[in-house]
Amino acid sequence: MQKPALFHTIGIISRPRRSDLEGVVPPLLRWLESRGIRALYDTETAEGLHNVPKGRDRVEVAEESQLLLVLGGDGTLLAAARVAAPLGIPILPINMGSLGFLTSFTVEELYPALESTLAGKATIEERVLLLVERTHNGELLTQQRVLNDAVVHKGTLARMIEVELHINAAFVCRYRADGLIVASPTGSTAYSLSAGGPIVQPGVESILVTPICPHTLSDRPVVVQDTSLIELYLSQSSDSVFLTLDGQTGVPMQIGDHVRITRAAERLKLIQPPNKTYFEILRNKLKWGEA
Amino acid sequence: MQKPALFHTIGIISRPRRSDLEGVVPPLLRWLESRGIRALYDTETAEGLHNVPKGRDRVEVAEESQLLLVLGGDGTLLAAARVAAPLGIPILPINMGSLGFLTSFTVEELYPALESTLAGKATIEERVLLLVERTHNGELLTQQRVLNDAVVHKGTLARMIEVELHINAAFVCRYRADGLIVASPTGSTAYSLSAGGPIVQPGVESILVTPICPHTLSDRPVVVQDTSLIELYLSQSSDSVFLTLDGQTGVPMQIGDHVRITRAAERLKLIQPPNKTYFEILRNKLKWGEA
Amino acid sequence: MQKPALFHTIGIISRPRRSDLEGVVPPLLRWLESRGIRALYDTETAEGLHNVPKGRDRVEVAEESQLLLVLGGDGTLLAAARVAAPLGIPILPINMGSLGFLTSFTVEELYPALESTLAGKATIEERVLLLVERTHNGELLTQQRVLNDAVVHKGTLARMIEVELHINAAFVCRYRADGLIVASPTGSTAYSLSAGGPIVQPGVESILVTPICPHTLSDRPVVVQDTSLIELYLSQSSDSVFLTLDGQTGVPMQIGDHVRITRAAERLKLIQPPNKTYFEILRNKLKWGEA
Amino acid sequence: MQKPALFHTIGIISRPRRSDLEGVVPPLLRWLESRGIRALYDTETAEGLHNVPKGRDRVEVAEESQLLLVLGGDGTLLAAARVAAPLGIPILPINMGSLGFLTSFTVEELYPALESTLAGKATIEERVLLLVERTHNGELLTQQRVLNDAVVHKGTLARMIEVELHINAAFVCRYRADGLIVASPTGSTAYSLSAGGPIVQPGVESILVTPICPHTLSDRPVVVQDTSLIELYLSQSSDSVFLTLDGQTGVPMQIGDHVRITRAAERLKLIQPPNKTYFEILRNKLKWGEA
Repeated sequence: MQKPALFHTIGIISRPRRSDLEGVVPPLLRWLESRGIRALYDTETAEGLHNVPKGRDRVEVAEESQLLLVLGGDGTLLAAARVAAPLGIPILPINMGSLGFLTSFTVEELYPALESTLAGKATIEERVLLLVERTHNGELLTQQRVLNDAVVHKGTLARMIEVELHINAAFVCRYRADGLIVASPTGSTAYSLSAGGPIVQPGVESILVTPICPHTLSDRPVVVQDTSLIELYLSQSSDSVFLTLDGQTGVPMQIGDHVRITRAAERLKLIQPPNKTYFEILRNKLKWGEA
Repeated sequence: MQKPALFHTIGIISRPRRSDLEGVVPPLLRWLESRGIRALYDTETAEGLHNVPKGRDRVEVAEESQLLLVLGGDGTLLAAARVAAPLGIPILPINMGSLGFLTSFTVEELYPALESTLAGKATIEERVLLLVERTHNGELLTQQRVLNDAVVHKGTLARMIEVELHINAAFVCRYRADGLIVASPTGSTAYSLSAGGPIVQPGVESILVTPICPHTLSDRPVVVQDTSLIELYLSQSSDSVFLTLDGQTGVPMQIGDHVRITRAAERLKLIQPPNKTYFEILRNKLKWGEA
Repeated sequence: MQKPALFHTIGIISRPRRSDLEGVVPPLLRWLESRGIRALYDTETAEGLHNVPKGRDRVEVAEESQLLLVLGGDGTLLAAARVAAPLGIPILPINMGSLGFLTSFTVEELYPALESTLAGKATIEERVLLLVERTHNGELLTQQRVLNDAVVHKGTLARMIEVELHINAAFVCRYRADGLIVASPTGSTAYSLSAGGPIVQPGVESILVTPICPHTLSDRPVVVQDTSLIELYLSQSSDSVFLTLDGQTGVPMQIGDHVRITRAAERLKLIQPPNKTYFEILRNKLKWGEA
Repeated sequence: MQKPALFHTIGIISRPRRSDLEGVVPPLLRWLESRGIRALYDTETAEGLHNVPKGRDRVEVAEESQLLLVLGGDGTLLAAARVAAPLGIPILPINMGSLGFLTSFTVEELYPALESTLAGKATIEERVLLLVERTHNGELLTQQRVLNDAVVHKGTLARMIEVELHINAAFVCRYRADGLIVASPTGSTAYSLSAGGPIVQPGVESILVTPICPHTLSDRPVVVQDTSLIELYLSQSSDSVFLTLDGQTGVPMQIGDHVRITRAAERLKLIQPPNKTYFEILRNKLKWGEA
């Protein structure tokens, strides 16, 4: 009788202001209650519902849960991943819109997926996160995990950035470009793909460095070991450079800023549909084999 | 005895604060004076010189001149081109740094080039400019010529833009991308090239549309006739979209803004070195055939 | 009463051994006969039909016709174009399989398109062909028009080719690559597109040079004026190099061969569906805006 | 005193008919003899020398040696690697022409590199090889290790190939392309790079699949784990398809052929210059940061 012990509290994380939460969440809460499972939801979920008590902070929800149910798109999942990974709790991602690379269950698959997860039969895939640390004169200014990518890029009206890439303390290249994407394998199908990067299967222990609009035409995406220490230095006075994490949070950078990127110690536990391979999802999203 | 009449006033336009102007401009002024040619210079040139009278506004300088001597890089030339083209006066571009695509004379070639130009023997190439007009509810908000390109692109922290391209009033494509570059053949070797666009020889009567980091992987650069009316519509509420002209001036766009791009009526008259072909300059800049 | 005079003989050209000709051609022959129009068909069409007299040679068919009806895919059209263009007769292309870039009428549109063509109301687009001439020590060995492209490429087991490109008698670049594609705007959506080339609208007066797998990473597709003389020289002893025309005929090349490519004097008259723009066809074929 | 025991016989493998062997090999033979080391050389080396006894077969040379000295370019090294890897003996690669990605010692570095190798102080890098097996109805027709890549590609005059990729027995994609490259990380800087593939650092445990001129524009290079079973199936009747191994040996394929690619059990031991990083070699070869 260990299963109830495994998941006695389940947290629900949603995309803010999704109009279709009303049809999904209340029945889900009743379903969980009927199984003796405590359900918590975050503030964003509560905002999408009528006549429910106020939600709680995402971090609090996660800390009391043994499973996070994420209702939304890849963006919601990216935010939830940063909370779930350090706590070591798995995420069950349910897509509320068009299928994402990460949120691979449909709403129709919600209950079968929950059943199978509660029964301990879910397929759990581990995904690497990257730890991004920005310092200035030794002072730590930014420290965050990302599931997809860290991007150093020019500000709106800047012409380009000039950034030096060092790997394991050795100089690799000075990029003159619109920006530089440092991505996990999971992130290889996100922004990096638009910038011309390859698709890297999540199991490949690697970090991907993809330049955005490089001025040097021979610059190419580079795939390095994920045990590497990746360091970026702004190599030029520049009026406007930014660091954006998982496409969600951006901070302006200063000359002299130093960005260190390494594999994070904790991985994300992501529940996967049992009958869809990675390449099947890819094939659908990229419309392979149709043209 | 017509040559002196052709060029009785020559304007000098420089990149602001270039330290090497001191060695170049004063001898040049004496050289011109000794030939009975009046010389005017702009404020930026004056700032780079000691003990000279204040310079004049670029537009004024151009209006009184029959030739513009541009000392600087491609950036200086882009700015000068917008002034010179509507006046129909030629530009003699002298590079003060590393060779540019546009500024193809070296400082050493300054006097031979001037001699040949004054003698009416210069090779003058005509370059198309694009006329960019931004309106909102029919009100004209931006109207500017560009020699290289007009770029509609996302703001610093925006995720992407969604922009509709219409050609000759017919819908072509809805781009979801970091941005969209509309370039003249001259601009094909500038930003568009970094974004993956082809090289278009200046004589090809065409306009080039190159997406920046398109989400749809099958999106490709498109080359259309330069008699086309190119129209861009922001197709989505978007927190931050900008229009940047020749990489130099940027304005924020609003939903509902409408950008029209056509070939400008006037062309730039650009003096070219007699012994360097377009492809020779290209080969040097792109390091073709060396790897 | 001039229309019957315009088209008193119509030639039918088909893809060899298409099983669906039986359902299309006999009714078409009766339809034409009932309008007093003489119909000719080529040997390939006859092979796809039961109980019909032997067909005639394509060139003969074309020489006696005022219109060619092409039943097939883009390949059939490429072959027909080489015959029709020098004779100045238009082609009405009917697609018998999946829609092609060139064969843009469906079988369902056959009779409406014929009616409109006979009534002199068809939209006729002119497409440039390239004239390809291969010589060796001044002897003309190959001379053929192409609608899409001429490709110089390595043989099966060769490592690469090394070919020099000259434009208007000036050296442009020495390519080390799998091959080099010289394409018309029409050909820009064929092989060149797979090799990374841009889409060039048929009206742009240009020729496109696209390298295949270039070893020099900075090599990029180049778009030049269609009044250019394009010359290719094999610059190295090489065991195996071929010249392929429109993807249909290939000949081995020898060191010392010289390939000249210019715009052909005659253009192809291609009948277009009145209600489909070039970009609409493109959008469908490339699945733009769907991902 | 174990070092002499480590390398009592050294084999010399050279590129056939290199004119500069005469200046390098005879002094090398004397140098080795003076240190009591037996030297063997292959037939190709002997062909490049005057007045020396006939050389021996490469495999025999390797079987009696504890170290292979490879004099030549990357091609010579690829051939030597297939012999050395299964025997577990290291290769010291000396470049005789322009620096290669693999042959990273210059002729000037020959003796210092030998000294350091004999002293047991060399930096030895292990490189993965791929094992390529082609079967037809269960019969093994081809079995070979490759250091760089296996390429399935169209024959000279074929239009394209259609090949199915399966990974770990699951269908991934049906490619319609000129060919498909399956490369090791070492091979990522060879043919795959010309076809648009990323640079994969040798330590990343992965196999790279890069399409050549894919017809489906959304096809992208894919990086998978090197524990994967990669299988290719020709999915269409096709007149002419070939399998080429390390760019050196090619065999025609038949419909029904099945190609299996896995990581080979043995790795190549490749001696590296102590003071050049992987990215330094790359930077030089690709001319990064110069444009």
